Amino acid sequence: MSVTNTKWVLKERPQGLVKNENFKLIKEELRDIQDGEVLIENQYLSFDPTQRMWLTDLPGYLPPVQIDEVVRSGGIGKIVESKNENFSEGDLVSGMVGWQTHHIPSENDLKTMRKVPDVLPIPTMLNIFGSTGITAYFGLLDIGNPQPGETVVVSGAAGATGAMVCQIAKIKGCHVIGIAGGDEKCSWLKECGVDDVIDYKNSNVAEELTKLAKNGIDIYFDNVGGPILESVLFLININARIICCGSISNYTGEQMPVGPRNLTMLIVRRAKMQGFLVLDYYSRSSEAIDDISKWAMEGKVKHREDIQEGIENCPETLNRLFTGQNQGKQMLKI
Amino acid sequence: MSVTNTKWVLKERPQGLVKNENFKLIKEELRDIQDGEVLIENQYLSFDPTQRMWLTDLPGYLPPVQIDEVVRSGGIGKIVESKNENFSEGDLVSGMVGWQTHHIPSENDLKTMRKVPDVLPIPTMLNIFGSTGITAYFGLLDIGNPQPGETVVVSGAAGATGAMVCQIAKIKGCHVIGIAGGDEKCSWLKECGVDDVIDYKNSNVAEELTKLAKNGIDIYFDNVGGPILESVLFLININARIICCGSISNYTGEQMPVGPRNLTMLIVRRAKMQGFLVLDYYSRSSEAIDDISKWAMEGKVKHREDIQEGIENCPETLNRLFTGQNQGKQMLKI
Repeated sequence: MSVTNTKWVLKERPQGLVKNENFKLIKEELRDIQDGEVLIENQYLSFDPTQRMWLTDLPGYLPPVQIDEVVRSGGIGKIVESKNENFSEGDLVSGMVGWQTHHIPSENDLKTMRKVPDVLPIPTMLNIFGSTGITAYFGLLDIGNPQPGETVVVSGAAGATGAMVCQIAKIKGCHVIGIAGGDEKCSWLKECGVDDVIDYKNSNVAEELTKLAKNGIDIYFDNVGGPILESVLFLININARIICCGSISNYTGEQMPVGPRNLTMLIVRRAKMQGFLVLDYYSRSSEAIDDISKWAMEGKVKHREDIQEGIENCPETLNRLFTGQNQGKQMLKI
Repeated sequence: MSVTNTKWVLKERPQGLVKNENFKLIKEELRDIQDGEVLIENQYLSFDPTQRMWLTDLPGYLPPVQIDEVVRSGGIGKIVESKNENFSEGDLVSGMVGWQTHHIPSENDLKTMRKVPDVLPIPTMLNIFGSTGITAYFGLLDIGNPQPGETVVVSGAAGATGAMVCQIAKIKGCHVIGIAGGDEKCSWLKECGVDDVIDYKNSNVAEELTKLAKNGIDIYFDNVGGPILESVLFLININARIICCGSISNYTGEQMPVGPRNLTMLIVRRAKMQGFLVLDYYSRSSEAIDDISKWAMEGKVKHREDIQEGIENCPETLNRLFTGQNQGKQMLKI
């Protein structure tokens, strides 16, 4: 079967928001698959802030995307041809599919692909049952250990992960304060049942936090990094937990990140800050998926997806995460 | 029994190093003790960086020392008169005795005083079996959980707490890198068996760390805060533990502390930073004291005390911690 793959490869390391010129859009004929291989036709690409980091050459948890390499990206694809006994034509698989329409994964890459059941719309699966949901679930529950009545602050709260964290915290009986940018996102958080919402674009976050977190802050789920952390630190309670999940304010590298000047609050309040990566939790995915499916069926978990279309729009779609344009989990339908 | 107490009270909040003029040195006749009370004659005062923080009005784990209040300080005193059945004349007690020669503690303060056995020189007890040893022991072992072969970096390593941390880490089989200022302190650390020593006054700490921590850093015991943390963060291993014990570089409030700009390393390396206070561990003191006595008897723990004399020299003695003049645990004999 002769197939043409359309793919984006990295041409140069971008500064700030990405531009089409930072990449090359290439068409290539794919070779025939050999024994043990499969041909995957990508269906949906997942866009996550961490992808922007992979385009830099800063130390990271995965090696940087190399020049002339396909841009790394999670997503869901369909097996359209298989010479591997573990995969059949029509199977849906989730994994690092890359910014491309088709691919023949290497033996090692194929091992990291997980089969996904074809029971729900693909975008829903990519969102709440994908790395987004698993990130929110283990970050909040495993590191944060939220207790009923505690105050949980979430930044980047209207993002896919943030909104899931807010809702799980509500399910666990916490008082939840979500920080997001703009009216539309704040209204969506209210719909999700968040107790208090701070619009960082139109208010002073430090002042609002002081007003709203009357009993102090027990848990901070940090998706953004930067100055908000400093405001939170001043308000943490004894034994507070700060979950470092992401640092979107720093990823585009346009400005030097700001470090909090009040880390001594960690001592004063005997608090911890802990970073984590969802990939350490993939082996326990089913715990998250079981609980999240149950909550979804009980109507306790709202979700929404922002679906762009067309492989040619990959760079622009990535930028939506950093300009705040995305309304929900950002993905692209191929 | 009529007794004259000589005491230092706070006159104004100091900036930077303290000056005698920030305090008032007062003599007062003490009243007779009543039923349930004791009269304590202070023997040795303990000087710790945290005392400088208590003189500011920044949020802390204890309320700030108030204007006209005796300066708060740990130490060891002797009961010279007792109308309390739990204490006899001649008992040694350890607790918050304050910058003064005598005092009659309030009922609540008396409850926090612990009797100490009169078996070792008082300075030794104030050092390795006092809050210094207990801080080092639980900070490193409880939060750091050091494993044989791991690399442990200690800042403020030649301080009383730091040197004890270094030696406990060696006992636990770790590779220990100590950071201290000046030849004399670095030599002392070598005597304590520290593997590598960095003299921050005469070298580039980031470069030295990169050279010496060839296998990365697993544990950082932070006594100083400030820029060294940033250098360490770039080198941490997966699952690294950063123990926030003190932040001496920030206590005098002369310059705005610097926040590390690379906290995303906590995510990349799934690492944690955790603050603690020794007062949360006092109920478990005996665990620390048992182990430290054993190690001391086996000759595995070196210690030294820097003993100033005379109640009139309290302010100057406090400054020795911040100018780096102290050679070992700073205390003052009354």
